Parts: sequence; structure tokens; C-alpha cells
Amino acid sequence: MDGAALAVSLGDPAGVGPELLAAAWARRFADDLPPFFAVGGPDLLAEAAKQRGLSVPIVQIFHPAEALDCFDVALPVLAGIDSDYRPGAPDRDGAEFALASLTEAARLAVDGEAAALVTGPIAKARLAEVGFDHPGQTEFVAAACGVAAEDAVMMLAGPNLRTVPLTVHIALSEVPRRLSSDLIVRRARVVAAALARDFGIEQPRLAIAALNPHAGEDGRMGDEEARIIAPAIAALQAEGIAATGPHPADALFAPRARAGFDAALCMYHDQALIPLKALDFDNGVNVTLGLPVIRTSPDHGTAFGIAGTGQADAGATIAAIRMAGECAARRAEAL
Amino acid sequence: MDGAALAVSLGDPAGVGPELLAAAWARRFADDLPPFFAVGGPDLLAEAAKQRGLSVPIVQIFHPAEALDCFDVALPVLAGIDSDYRPGAPDRDGAEFALASLTEAARLAVDGEAAALVTGPIAKARLAEVGFDHPGQTEFVAAACGVAAEDAVMMLAGPNLRTVPLTVHIALSEVPRRLSSDLIVRRARVVAAALARDFGIEQPRLAIAALNPHAGEDGRMGDEEARIIAPAIAALQAEGIAATGPHPADALFAPRARAGFDAALCMYHDQALIPLKALDFDNGVNVTLGLPVIRTSPDHGTAFGIAGTGQADAGATIAAIRMAGECAARRAEAL
Repeated sequence: MDGAALAVSLGDPAGVGPELLAAAWARRFADDLPPFFAVGGPDLLAEAAKQRGLSVPIVQIFHPAEALDCFDVALPVLAGIDSDYRPGAPDRDGAEFALASLTEAARLAVDGEAAALVTGPIAKARLAEVGFDHPGQTEFVAAACGVAAEDAVMMLAGPNLRTVPLTVHIALSEVPRRLSSDLIVRRARVVAAALARDFGIEQPRLAIAALNPHAGEDGRMGDEEARIIAPAIAALQAEGIAATGPHPADALFAPRARAGFDAALCMYHDQALIPLKALDFDNGVNVTLGLPVIRTSPDHGTAFGIAGTGQADAGATIAAIRMAGECAARRAEAL
Repeated sequence: MDGAALAVSLGDPAGVGPELLAAAWARRFADDLPPFFAVGGPDLLAEAAKQRGLSVPIVQIFHPAEALDCFDVALPVLAGIDSDYRPGAPDRDGAEFALASLTEAARLAVDGEAAALVTGPIAKARLAEVGFDHPGQTEFVAAACGVAAEDAVMMLAGPNLRTVPLTVHIALSEVPRRLSSDLIVRRARVVAAALARDFGIEQPRLAIAALNPHAGEDGRMGDEEARIIAPAIAALQAEGIAATGPHPADALFAPRARAGFDAALCMYHDQALIPLKALDFDNGVNVTLGLPVIRTSPDHGTAFGIAGTGQADAGATIAAIRMAGECAARRAEAL
């Protein structure tokens, strides 16, 4: 919906989500942020801002459209749900609030009342205790959109690099048997389409990482490159997708190599996350590709250990909000 | 041997080794390099320097000690063996030259006629064709020193990071079964001792990486952390070694985390090499710990594809020479 504000879920109220959202609003002009509103938590946000030493006026709104009018002068917060602010001390009430905020924010994005969805950091184990039965927020949002979890693709994006982990939260020993040509092709198609549609990259260049060191050195160290990865690349190229590889993963994230692709598709979690966090730790955004809605998230956790201390960096939250706004604007333009 | 020069093997003459050695000598004053000499290749080096547009006078020497006298005014080259310069076109003669240069350079270091050994990049498959029967130069040098290959530990070092891969050139699917507490403890002891003796770090802090994403999340994604890695860390701590972990590998190489350790011990090749090359691509040094001699090498290959074009960066060669000189000076002081 053109001209709508972004919906932001608060995440766990005992984590760093609320204070970073307040900090992002405080930098709305300096960082040229699109209008957004918090889904719930007016008292929570006021307390979190105060504890961080920020002057953040809160205005309660009753419909997302009201956010546009007041965003410049106050942080708009959708009324209805709230939580106490006890940084570093997560509890069941907080988990219930986090789940309610996420659920409502996703609904608003799906219904087109918000231009995009930005999700704050949750503690998965705590949300599971109050009925959340998804591996993570990515799968939750996919379900809210009616999309199969395997077609919702997680991409990590920072100023220097975009990476897509093709397998995520599984043991390293499970990785080789979970990979398949079909998985690579299916995910690569989603990534290529999303980079074109949402990121304005006309012919996206996808670098497909190898699994084994030195890409297996012609089969001397593992055969997954020849058996699984190379056939997937050939299939993608036959479809006109600019895929290359399998690239030895160690050299793929060096400065000159990075200039040669728009996103790297990685075979396992740490292959994608190590370079991203080494290069873009404070500005990493987790974006879900392949959904009818735009969804981004700062690429960090609840950080209960430093919540309320003012140490948490708002860079990733600001980057997630900005990226969601840019993607939403591209989709709106294309309509 | 105090006051001796460093011996540098040329590597494959068709690769970037010769031109980068000439380029390093040309920067001997700018980069404050210790005296070194090339082991063989006077005509080869003269041609490589010329093709790179460098003015590098060559002086043939007949004993390593002569290098000290002439290093300021000319690149000292040990007479006896030489090779044609055909960049990008490796052949059998070149492989034989590379093996002879390496063998003699190692001998000089072992015999104390050189202060340290710096090895240029070879093509392992080509050297194997002329009788080289080691997995790599690290194992070759260990054998030359009479040290078991498993006690010669490869460390990658750049300006931002030091990493040690505990397993190296094996398929990723082999990694979990190759890891053991004993392997971790044995290698960590070598690393701790070498950082203290050769790098001047009094109480080295070793970060031990996890194998699985999020360090396995209490066994939900793999049990190697609890079964193999944590017991090794406990054993190391009991010996007084400042080892910590298992650390989730994705966050371990972020700027703030890096400040907390002197070296990261990694479970597999790409876990160690991805962050090193992402952060320090042009300056990475491969150093062998646990040997009676100092041995370093630029952390890149022969780069046949760009040899002779002037594109190859001499940063890693310069860094390898400087590091070898610093380590040799620390050992000499301690005598």
C-alpha cells in the first residue's frame, strides 16, 4: 500500500528491541528514515527511551494510517497492548507481549495496512513457552502470508555483503546430506527475483559457494561440488540466471571477490554468517525474500545481558528500517 | 643464528613468487624489512623484476652470510640453481626448480645458516609430479626438522586476526569425525607456546570456536561442543592456558569479539580462512608453529593466471618476511 508507514514489532520487552526502536526514531532525520510505528508498548517504549537517556515523545495511535501524520514529532505507537520494562529480566508476560506484537504487526503487513514489517529480536525458547511453534520469525511470517516455509528465503545484508544460508539451524554434520540441487535452484530463483524486484538490481549476479575447502579440488576433498552444486548452477544458467561457482568459500568474501556478485548463496549457517558479521557486525539486516510482504529484522538477538545499559548499537535496527522502506518504495513504484 | 639473513624459496617460477620477492626487496627500506636472500634463480629474478617494471640489481652469493653485506644495495641470490621465466606457463623444469629451492632453503634454516625460512607459493600437484610426497610445504618443512607432521601447526595471521585451522584439507563431511579433544589440546599447547616465544605475547588468549551454529544451542544442533570441545577447553584451563569457548563461530570474528583473543582455534579450513581472507586478504601470512625453525609464507597460491602482469599484490610476501624477521629476533633475544 503506497504511502503507508512500516509496522515494527517490539521483540522481547526485556531485550534491546524497545530501546533500539526509540533510538532509531531519535535518528529519523539524521538517517532519513521512512515513517514507522511500533506495534504496542507505549509505556514500555517511554521507559526504555528514558533509561537510554533519550527524549522520545510517544503518541498513541489507533490505526496505522495515523502514524504518517505524527511521525515527525513523536514515535507513533499502536495502542492496545503494553508491557512493563524490566531490561535483562525476561518473563512469561514479556514473551506473551512479544508474541502479540509480532502477530499483530504481521497481520497489518499482510492486510496492506502497513507498507512493510520490521521485527524486533525475540528469544525463541521463551516464545515457544507461550505457544509459538515456529523455528523462528522467518517461518512465522511465511505462515502468516500463506507461503511454505521452504520458499521463504533468509538473506543477510550489510553495507559490504549479502549472503543467503541455504541450510540454517542444523548440526554441521547434517549439512552435506541436506543439500540438494533442487534446494539450491529453488532458493536461487527466489533470491534472483527478489534482488530484481525489491533491491533494484536488474540482472542479479549470484555467487554459489562450494561446500568443501578449495571447492573440493576436483573431487579430492568431497564430491558435493560436482554431484550437487555444479548441476544446480548449470540449471540456473539455463534459465538465464547469472549464477557462478562453485566458488572456494575462503576467497569469496575478500574485497575484490565481493565486487563480483550481488549475493552469495552459502551451504551452511556459519559460511554465510561469519563473513557478514566480520564485515558488517553493527549493520547487518536479516531480510526475508519470496514473501508477498516485505520483512526485515536487525541481525542480532535480544542481548539480555546489555539491555538497559545503553551499550547496544542501533545501527542494525536503523538499517533494517531503512531497507524495509526502500524495498517497499520499489514495490510501490512498480505497481 | 643471531644476525643471519632469512632464506626465501622462490616457489613455482611460473607463478607470482619471483616477481613478488623482487617487489618486496624494492620496498626493503619503506617497509623496514630484515635482510633476506633468494635461494636460487638469479636470471629468473632479474627477468621477473624487469617484467614488473622494477629496477632490482641482483648479486649472486655463494654463502648465506654474504647476504648481510649486500642486501641494502642489491637482492642477494644464492647461486647454483636457476630457471627460465615463463609466467603463467608452468612446466616440469619449473617444478624441479621450485622443489630444489625449497629443499635448500629449508636445509639452510635447519642448519642455522639462515635466521628463518620464508617459502614462496608452489603448485602442489605439479611438485608431486617431480617427487614431492607431502600434502603441503608445512609438512615438508616439519619433516626437514624431524618433527611429526601433526605437531607442526599452521596459523594464518593478518593485521586484524590470527586463526588456526585444526583440520585442513579434508571434505567438510569428514570434519566432525576427525575432531577429538586430544587434537584440540595438543594443537592449543603448540599455539600457546609459540605465541609466547615467537610473538611476544606473555599469556596468550586462545578462543576455541564451536563446530555447530550457535555453538549447538545446548545440544539441539550437534553434540560436538559438549562431547569434544568443552572437555578440551577444561583440560587446557587446568594446565594454565587461557582458553575460552566453545564460541559461536559467526560472532567470533566481529570487531569487538576479536579484541578478546590472540588467536582463534577453528574446527575446519573455511572457518579459519573465511574471516582471515575477508579481513586481511592482501596481508595474510601462513606461519608454521611448533618447529625448531621459523617458517612463514604468503597466504596465497601461485596465481598463474596473473603472473607476469604486475597485478599481484606484494603485501602478503612483505608481511611474511617481516613476521619471520620479528619471530627470529625474539628467539635470538631469548638465547
